[in-house]
Amino acid sequence: MSNSIANLVLGSDAKLSSSDNEVIFSATSSRVLKGEEIELVYEVADPERRLDTSAGKLPSLLDLVHQCHNHEPWLDTSLTPFVLDGVQIGFLPARVMKACIDDSVNQRRVGAPPVLRQVRFAMNHREIVPPTATSRVCEAITFTAEFGTPEARTSGLNGVAQRWREARIFPDPLDGWRGELYAIYGLNPQPGCRNPIAFKLERAACALFGFATFGVHLTAYTVSPTTGELKVWVPQRSSTKSTWPGYLDNSVAGGIVAGDLPMESMVRECEEEANLESSVVEKHVKQVGVLSYCYKTRKQGWIQPEVEYVYDLPLPAHVVLQPKDGEVDHFNLMTLDEIYEKMREGRFKANCVLVLLDFLIRHGHITADKEPGYRQIVTQLHVDLRLPGP
Amino acid sequence: MSNSIANLVLGSDAKLSSSDNEVIFSATSSRVLKGEEIELVYEVADPERRLDTSAGKLPSLLDLVHQCHNHEPWLDTSLTPFVLDGVQIGFLPARVMKACIDDSVNQRRVGAPPVLRQVRFAMNHREIVPPTATSRVCEAITFTAEFGTPEARTSGLNGVAQRWREARIFPDPLDGWRGELYAIYGLNPQPGCRNPIAFKLERAACALFGFATFGVHLTAYTVSPTTGELKVWVPQRSSTKSTWPGYLDNSVAGGIVAGDLPMESMVRECEEEANLESSVVEKHVKQVGVLSYCYKTRKQGWIQPEVEYVYDLPLPAHVVLQPKDGEVDHFNLMTLDEIYEKMREGRFKANCVLVLLDFLIRHGHITADKEPGYRQIVTQLHVDLRLPGP
Repeated sequence: MSNSIANLVLGSDAKLSSSDNEVIFSATSSRVLKGEEIELVYEVADPERRLDTSAGKLPSLLDLVHQCHNHEPWLDTSLTPFVLDGVQIGFLPARVMKACIDDSVNQRRVGAPPVLRQVRFAMNHREIVPPTATSRVCEAITFTAEFGTPEARTSGLNGVAQRWREARIFPDPLDGWRGELYAIYGLNPQPGCRNPIAFKLERAACALFGFATFGVHLTAYTVSPTTGELKVWVPQRSSTKSTWPGYLDNSVAGGIVAGDLPMESMVRECEEEANLESSVVEKHVKQVGVLSYCYKTRKQGWIQPEVEYVYDLPLPAHVVLQPKDGEVDHFNLMTLDEIYEKMREGRFKANCVLVLLDFLIRHGHITADKEPGYRQIVTQLHVDLRLPGP
Repeated sequence: MSNSIANLVLGSDAKLSSSDNEVIFSATSSRVLKGEEIELVYEVADPERRLDTSAGKLPSLLDLVHQCHNHEPWLDTSLTPFVLDGVQIGFLPARVMKACIDDSVNQRRVGAPPVLRQVRFAMNHREIVPPTATSRVCEAITFTAEFGTPEARTSGLNGVAQRWREARIFPDPLDGWRGELYAIYGLNPQPGCRNPIAFKLERAACALFGFATFGVHLTAYTVSPTTGELKVWVPQRSSTKSTWPGYLDNSVAGGIVAGDLPMESMVRECEEEANLESSVVEKHVKQVGVLSYCYKTRKQGWIQPEVEYVYDLPLPAHVVLQPKDGEVDHFNLMTLDEIYEKMREGRFKANCVLVLLDFLIRHGHITADKEPGYRQIVTQLHVDLRLPGP
C-alpha cells in the first residue's frame, strides 16, 4: 500500500512502521507473532454513525439526527479548552485562541487589564467510578485574576467580543449580534447542588468559545377520544425571522432566560409565542427529558454544544395555539404522517427534528422492531457533553 | 511538586517535562509564553460524574446510575478489540487475549483448526459527518478463515469457552455456565438494514469477551382514575435465583431470545413471568426507548456492555400480576415513595434502577427543576456503546 493511500484510508496519524508495530504488539503472547504475518484489518464503518447516501433517497431518521449532532468535541484535539475554576466550560478553535491572546497583549499595551490568560490544564479524562483516569496536560484559556466575579467576567468577555466585532475579526457570527445575553454556567464544587451562573455573554458570541446553550422545547398535541389518533401542533416560523425564516418549528421553543429554572422559561414562552394561558400550561404540561448534542457549523467550524429540555403538553381539542409575538406565522395541527414527510423533506428547523423524534419514540410511534437505526437515534439524542449547566 | 504527588494527581501519563510543554504550546501565539510563567490548573472533577460520598448519606440518584454504568471501554486502552468483518464487537482484557492466543497454539499442536487469530486493526475513531477521524492501528482478535459462518463460529467459540471451563482458567464467570446461548450481532454492510446474528455464545462466557447483551424491561403500572396517583408493579425475585436472589426487580424483564425482535421477547416474558395474557399485553404495551451502559465487574474487571429495550404497560386496576414460572416470589403494587426508598436502600437489582429512573423521568416525576443531577442521569442512561445489535 502506498503512503498516500495509507493516509487516505488510515488518516495521517496511522502507525504502520515496523518499530511502531513492535511496540503495539508487545503486550501479549509473542508466540504467534514471530513466525507469522499479522493481517491488517480496516474498520469498515462505525456501526453507530453510518449515513445512507444512496442517490435519490430521502434521508433516514438517523441522517436527520446527524444534521444536528455532527461533532465530538472531546475527541477533537484541535480545540482549546476554556477553563473556569478547574472545569472545562468551552471549546475554542485555534484562531479564536489566538485572537484571545492577541486581545490580552493589546489590552496590556493600552494600559487596560487583560481579560483572558493562558494556562496549562491537567485533564482527568472521563473520571468515573472506579476511575479510569488517564490524565493529560494541555493548553487552555481562562479569566485573569482581575475578572473573578460574574459581573466582572460578563463585562470583560463581552468587551472582548465587542472589540472583535468592531475590528470585524469574526463577522460570522458577530455580525448577527443580538444584544441578548446567554448564561454560561460554572461548576458548584458541592456535589448535588445547583450550578452557579459564571457570567453572561452576548448570544452571537457563544459559538466562538464553544459554550453550551440551553433551551426549552415543547410538543403540544391532541389525542382523539374516539380513534386515539395523535396530532401535533406545528408552527411555521415568520418569514421575517433572522434565522430559519419560514421553517416549521416545535410547538413552543426558546432559550432559557438567565436565572430561570427551565420550567419557568417554558411557561413564559407558551404565553408569548402561542398565546397559551399559564394556568392551562401548568395544568397539563410535563417535563419528559433532556436532549443534548454538538453541532459544528458547516462554514466556519464553530462548536455549538446544545441542550434542550423537552416537555409534553397534551391538550383538549378546544384549546387552539395562536401566534402572538410575531415569531410565528401560523399554527397547524398535523398528523404524524405529515410530520414524517416534512421532517424528511427538510422543512423543519434542524434541531426541532430531534425533539419530534424523541416524542415519537417515547410515545411508541418509532419502535426498535420497525426502525433499524432505533438504538443509534436514541443514544445520539443524549450525548454526554460534560459541560456544567443550570 | 514531587513526582509521586504529580502521579497521584495527574496519573502516570501526565506530561510535565519542559520539552513536552514546548511541544504542547507550540500551536498558538508565543508572545505571552516567552516572558511569563504559565500556571498549571488541575481539573477539579468531571462535571458529569461526581459522586456524593459524604459520610452517612444515602446515595443520590446519579450514584445509583453509576452502580451500573461504571466504565468507558472505548477510552480503556488496556482492552483488545474483538473484530468481525471490520467492526469491533467486543472488548478483551489482556488475560483473555492471551488465553485466546494460547488456545489457538494448543489447537494447532493437537492438529485441530485454531478458532481465533490475531490481526492488526485500523480504527476510525468516532466516524461522524463530517468525519473527525483520527485513526490508529492496534492489536485485535478475530475468527480464523475456517470459522466463517454463524454455525462454525458458534461451535468454535463455545468450544474455546468449554476448554477454558474444563481447565478452570476463568472460574469466574465460567463456573456459572447456564447452557443458554446469547446472540452476538455483526454489522450489516447495507446501511439501514437489520444486523445479522454473527454467532451465539454461552451466556456465562459473554463477559470474558466484552460482548454486548440485550434485554427487555417492562414497567407495569396503574393510574388511579380519581386521584391520578401512579403505582408500579414490583416483583421480588425468588430466593433461589442464582443471581440477585430476593432483590426487587422490574415488573417483567428478560434477555432477548436469539432471533426474536425485542417485542416478541417482551410479550413472551410477560406470559411466563407475570402470567399476563398476550392479548392484554399487546393491547396496552408501548415501547418507549432503549437504555445502554457499560458495567465493569468489580472483582474480575470483565466488561459487560448492556442494552435494555424499555416498555410501559399501563394496566386497569383489575389486572393483577402473578408469579408463574418460579422466577418471582411475589408481586407488590408500590407507590413512587416506596420505590424511591427501596432504590436508595439498594433493595433493587442494580440495572432495574436505570429502568425505573427512566420511567420516572419520562412521566415527569423526576424533573430538572428539582433534581440537580437530571441531565447527567439522562445522558448516562443512554451511553453510545458503538457495538452492533439486533
